[in-house]
Amino acid sequence: MSSDLPGIADLLQASRRLHAVAVRTPLLESERLNRIAGRRILVKAECLQRGGSFKFRGAWNHIAAVHPTLDGRPILAVSSGNHAQGVARAAAMMEVPATIVMPADAPAPKLHGTKSYGAEVVTYDRDSGPREEIAERERANRNAHMVPPYDDPLVIAGQGTVGLEITEQVHRLGIHAADVLIPCSGGGLAAGCALAFESESPGLRVRPVEPAGFDDWARSLAKGERDENAAPSGSLCDALLAETPGRITWAVGHHRFGPGLVVSDDEALRAVAAAWRYLRIVLEPSGATALAAALALPDGDKPAIVVASGGNVSVETFTQAVQSVDESTVAN
Amino acid sequence: MSSDLPGIADLLQASRRLHAVAVRTPLLESERLNRIAGRRILVKAECLQRGGSFKFRGAWNHIAAVHPTLDGRPILAVSSGNHAQGVARAAAMMEVPATIVMPADAPAPKLHGTKSYGAEVVTYDRDSGPREEIAERERANRNAHMVPPYDDPLVIAGQGTVGLEITEQVHRLGIHAADVLIPCSGGGLAAGCALAFESESPGLRVRPVEPAGFDDWARSLAKGERDENAAPSGSLCDALLAETPGRITWAVGHHRFGPGLVVSDDEALRAVAAAWRYLRIVLEPSGATALAAALALPDGDKPAIVVASGGNVSVETFTQAVQSVDESTVAN
Repeated sequence: MSSDLPGIADLLQASRRLHAVAVRTPLLESERLNRIAGRRILVKAECLQRGGSFKFRGAWNHIAAVHPTLDGRPILAVSSGNHAQGVARAAAMMEVPATIVMPADAPAPKLHGTKSYGAEVVTYDRDSGPREEIAERERANRNAHMVPPYDDPLVIAGQGTVGLEITEQVHRLGIHAADVLIPCSGGGLAAGCALAFESESPGLRVRPVEPAGFDDWARSLAKGERDENAAPSGSLCDALLAETPGRITWAVGHHRFGPGLVVSDDEALRAVAAAWRYLRIVLEPSGATALAAALALPDGDKPAIVVASGGNVSVETFTQAVQSVDESTVAN
Repeated sequence: MSSDLPGIADLLQASRRLHAVAVRTPLLESERLNRIAGRRILVKAECLQRGGSFKFRGAWNHIAAVHPTLDGRPILAVSSGNHAQGVARAAAMMEVPATIVMPADAPAPKLHGTKSYGAEVVTYDRDSGPREEIAERERANRNAHMVPPYDDPLVIAGQGTVGLEITEQVHRLGIHAADVLIPCSGGGLAAGCALAFESESPGLRVRPVEPAGFDDWARSLAKGERDENAAPSGSLCDALLAETPGRITWAVGHHRFGPGLVVSDDEALRAVAAAWRYLRIVLEPSGATALAAALALPDGDKPAIVVASGGNVSVETFTQAVQSVDESTVAN
């Protein structure tokens, strides 16, 4: 293995860096949701994190680590939204200037949210070429320091603190063996959690969850090598569209993850509605995919632990989800 | 003072009873919300509690205390919804049969939610006479034990555990003096929190918050004696319609509370939308009144601590609130 892979010591260091600044998000449970699912479902509510998703953790860990070497240089990140807001939020708290390169079709609340944290936002057309090239040009122009969205040991270690917290929280419930369903795009959150579980609770296994049509992890894990998605966009799950597993996240995850799970946009929307009704949390479709997979999983005798990874959702998408709730049947 | 008033020892006992069963709800903060409000706002998210509101705490504490003396007798409660769900949830967890007497016009999710926890629901017409008489008849028919919604030392002590948690959470942030805004109907939550603060953090002061037209606490506190509301219903804040302060809650609160605050239904709806967008939690209008008051308060230099007391809301009311959000301005 290459030496740039993160390990448990990196996660523990990230945990110390994040201790005073990140929300220790609750692990929520609903008896009614359990009854509907026919299994126990425990939901790690990372939508309650600063910036509205787990992305704050990796961003803070990375920026805090490199801060002493920045010498006034700005931070730059490329993101469709949640990494953008996590980086913007963390940079603002550390008073580091930040530029965020975002696709022009990113959801309005993510664009506005990123700007509102004080970051400069540069937009690009998703079909106009590799976003890496656009980002590198912007980075060079500003002599900026890039915070990668997932393929970075510091970012992976930061996201892995979600796994450290889950471990403590489920041990308190007497749970030592379960699948942990995690929304997966580049794979930073899933990889970080896999490192946490291997060290602290080896009976917990990561199952990456993806939207239909963007199941590069599921296919890659099935065939044992990195595969790509056919299209760059076309799902309501706008945060889960990375075209292929990252190099580092694949190296960490390919032998630690269980098989991938895939959900439809409709299943994700129904999970948004279920989280609204039974857990009283606000999720975006991407952030609800793991809950959707837990509701659809056939092996209902085991508990499912679910990461609800983000809640930065547009009015239109959210009301579409909630209005599908049938009040007369949903609670029975 | 009469000897049936609860004290800090009762709260600490409640805290021990609730330790393993209640959600320790997070104290949430949004930089963007702070900027809009022009002050620091810290939100105790009791909508994430079991049953969707703080009411689980008082119900559990009461039922756990009397459980050894029930000898198979059922529990009975009267409630427009949140106490109903709190009692039904706690009774189900302790395997005690429960009957809940609810107004026929209670919100659909509260009626269905209460039934779904396994309770028998008996409905009555809000204008057909004193609900106490209806409840007493149902209680006598079943030889049931009544769990009062607020005017009860065990219930007040249970709700007061919200105050104990707030005290610990704000001390960790270095805050030792602030107003704590609390939605107020019968006054059980506000009274319990006042006892917690007096003992553990005397610089924290309870400010009861009510919907316009149902401001019996504000008027009672202003004139120094218990006053009544004119109407039994007529606000979107359906959980805050008790006609007058309770006897015990008044005895606890009248010399400990600061002046009452009053918000309109429109202000409550805007706070529902703000909580959805900036905190990613789901509130009902009643549960958002304290946040609404914090957003409207003029003295913006001090932090405001807010209890977001419940999140059992209908699809119609919630989408009405969320659709008022202007994506292009809300995040700036």
